[in-house]
Amino acid sequence: MAAEIVNPRSGAETDSGTDSVTDEPFDPAFALHRGGKLAVRATVPVRDRDDLSLAYTPGVARVCTAIAEKPELVHDYTWKSQVVAVVTDGTAVLGLGDIGPEASLPVMEGKAILFKQFGGVDAVPIALATTDADEIVETVVRLAPSFGGVNLEDIAAPRCFEIERRLQERLDIPVFHDDQHGTAVVTLAALRNAARLTGRTLGDLRAVISGAGAAGVAIAKFLLAAGIGDVAVTDRKGVVSAGRDDLTDVKREIAELTNRAGLTGSLASALEGADVFIGVSGGTVPEEAVASMAKDAFVFAMANPDPEVHPDVAHKYAAVVATGRSDFPNQINNVLAFPGIFAGALQVRASRITEGMKIAAAQALADVVGDELAADFVIPSPFDERVAPAVTAAVAAAARVDGVARR
Amino acid sequence: MAAEIVNPRSGAETDSGTDSVTDEPFDPAFALHRGGKLAVRATVPVRDRDDLSLAYTPGVARVCTAIAEKPELVHDYTWKSQVVAVVTDGTAVLGLGDIGPEASLPVMEGKAILFKQFGGVDAVPIALATTDADEIVETVVRLAPSFGGVNLEDIAAPRCFEIERRLQERLDIPVFHDDQHGTAVVTLAALRNAARLTGRTLGDLRAVISGAGAAGVAIAKFLLAAGIGDVAVTDRKGVVSAGRDDLTDVKREIAELTNRAGLTGSLASALEGADVFIGVSGGTVPEEAVASMAKDAFVFAMANPDPEVHPDVAHKYAAVVATGRSDFPNQINNVLAFPGIFAGALQVRASRITEGMKIAAAQALADVVGDELAADFVIPSPFDERVAPAVTAAVAAAARVDGVARR
Repeated sequence: MAAEIVNPRSGAETDSGTDSVTDEPFDPAFALHRGGKLAVRATVPVRDRDDLSLAYTPGVARVCTAIAEKPELVHDYTWKSQVVAVVTDGTAVLGLGDIGPEASLPVMEGKAILFKQFGGVDAVPIALATTDADEIVETVVRLAPSFGGVNLEDIAAPRCFEIERRLQERLDIPVFHDDQHGTAVVTLAALRNAARLTGRTLGDLRAVISGAGAAGVAIAKFLLAAGIGDVAVTDRKGVVSAGRDDLTDVKREIAELTNRAGLTGSLASALEGADVFIGVSGGTVPEEAVASMAKDAFVFAMANPDPEVHPDVAHKYAAVVATGRSDFPNQINNVLAFPGIFAGALQVRASRITEGMKIAAAQALADVVGDELAADFVIPSPFDERVAPAVTAAVAAAARVDGVARR
Repeated sequence: MAAEIVNPRSGAETDSGTDSVTDEPFDPAFALHRGGKLAVRATVPVRDRDDLSLAYTPGVARVCTAIAEKPELVHDYTWKSQVVAVVTDGTAVLGLGDIGPEASLPVMEGKAILFKQFGGVDAVPIALATTDADEIVETVVRLAPSFGGVNLEDIAAPRCFEIERRLQERLDIPVFHDDQHGTAVVTLAALRNAARLTGRTLGDLRAVISGAGAAGVAIAKFLLAAGIGDVAVTDRKGVVSAGRDDLTDVKREIAELTNRAGLTGSLASALEGADVFIGVSGGTVPEEAVASMAKDAFVFAMANPDPEVHPDVAHKYAAVVATGRSDFPNQINNVLAFPGIFAGALQVRASRITEGMKIAAAQALADVVGDELAADFVIPSPFDERVAPAVTAAVAAAARVDGVARR
């Protein structure tokens, strides 16, 4: 592996098994990360005075003047419409929690290279030295002239909901909290295909979501928008239901929107007879609860690295099993969605990302599976090259339908 | 020229002389700028699941955890120490003035490609939607975790002075207003060589600077720090002198620091017997005033595109003539300084850029000329490949001497 690393700043493994740079025990992840994972490059030549006179003074002044006179030209003559800010406050990084902005940077750089690799979208990590919602909103609003979109990342709930909503109100470029909507889109795609495989529709399904954070809340709302039969959300205290007196504003909204069946009590009791389990919590589900689900159930145990239900256990009872891990079939991986969603939105200079664009993304993603549909193939691989172009095209078309495209 | 453009988004010239994309009359500057001049690239491979498991989850979590435990590792395992934010509010862009953040982006992208081409430094344009000094300071402080340095650009005086000072106080990474200090460094380098050519030292010279904006103020202070005999600064109302009652805080400070000769009155009168004219104003200087300067005078008429004194006129009276233009000898071009200054500062993880580092940069830049010194060669070409390595090394060494290096 180390021999294939292209990063010239990387360390290598010595014969004695240590890192050639740090002299610590060799870890390929550290060797790969040395010097970071991103670089900027010029897309125009800067070889001589003639080049400089076009790319910089005096030629650049004509381009600046044209944009000053006709502001929408900024999309044509700068990289604005190609570049997304990946914004975090470092408070909910992977499963690591609140590790701060600097320590979140390797994840944000990783996100940026996924944007580039899978969507052709340039992305810049912006890890902020504040966790105050007002300050985050103000900061991103001030940054917005330089970017064509904002991907919010690893910001803790419930602050993430407010920040996204306020930024969407203030900005005329797409603002998208991937931990919410990316996860929701890929989950819906997998669920549609699982339903198709078992001869059902979304309307036939009752789902239980374990986890009322960013992902759980977004998945619940999105499944409702897509027409699921019923969905209940559980947190550590059980089903989020109207009768509870310990709910945050966001959970109160969830209690109102979801749970038509009027469930109360524990996750285990909610799973009795349920068709779908969606785990975004990191907890564990007892085998008996999985066994109590309906016939041909779907278990999407997406916690990383430890799924809420181990796939070997889930397979005993469920018709379709998905996880968040790359070493099992049916990986629910956000990288299937966000690169194409932003690529499609940027392509038509969408002013926002609508529900219709997300639904279209999920449908396009589901459709990639096509005739290959099987219990261990309800969602494509992240490396399936058909995915990003399909999602991009569907999102761009939906933006036009929804009237948010600007070209 | 158009055929050599590598930007795949660029327009081309049609047979009928129009742009193939816009159908407007072909302008190579617009064709080159189509789609912008920058892109991001990954420095690590993302070809398969194994790559992803190192560059992203789960491998990245080990790197994040290590940084959370030992914050200085952010410099080793992210691109932080390779990347500079090029920050502007769009209020003093080239000679165009307050054209706003979007219209400033082509210049900021140009700056970024110069950083990369000449210093190997990654740079990201950050054009802010605010012109309020407090807001700019707060915003940049919040962005700082993601960047190894901050290059302030094209922010109007006198706000630029306050913003730079406050950011330097708040941040432990280099903050450098290039319009001030980059210009000052290159000017000093040229002046040192001009003095050497004519058998004088800096202490022998009396200089007059036309322009009391960012560049004029910075050059005056820097020449004093370097040991110039005397310097006076003029604005539209003449010499900035203690007796005037119309001075801003910054100009009052300049009046106190400069003008030992106690000059008052017009630029033309100040030039009588002066050894050096430094123009950073964009005005014009009458030929009689140039003729009244001392023997073997130096005329650095740096306004772009129209020098304060045309070189053909200046050559009638002056021993050394420099301009800001690339089509005359002795171009005072900031690109000779800022890439190497940041590269040197980042190399040793300097916490700031000291006067000593700037003096060292000017000396290294002057020394590149060496034995080739001549009246039309007091400063190297921007494309002289010896420049950036020499400046980088000198700045890194000076950072160590000044105790601001962190490795």
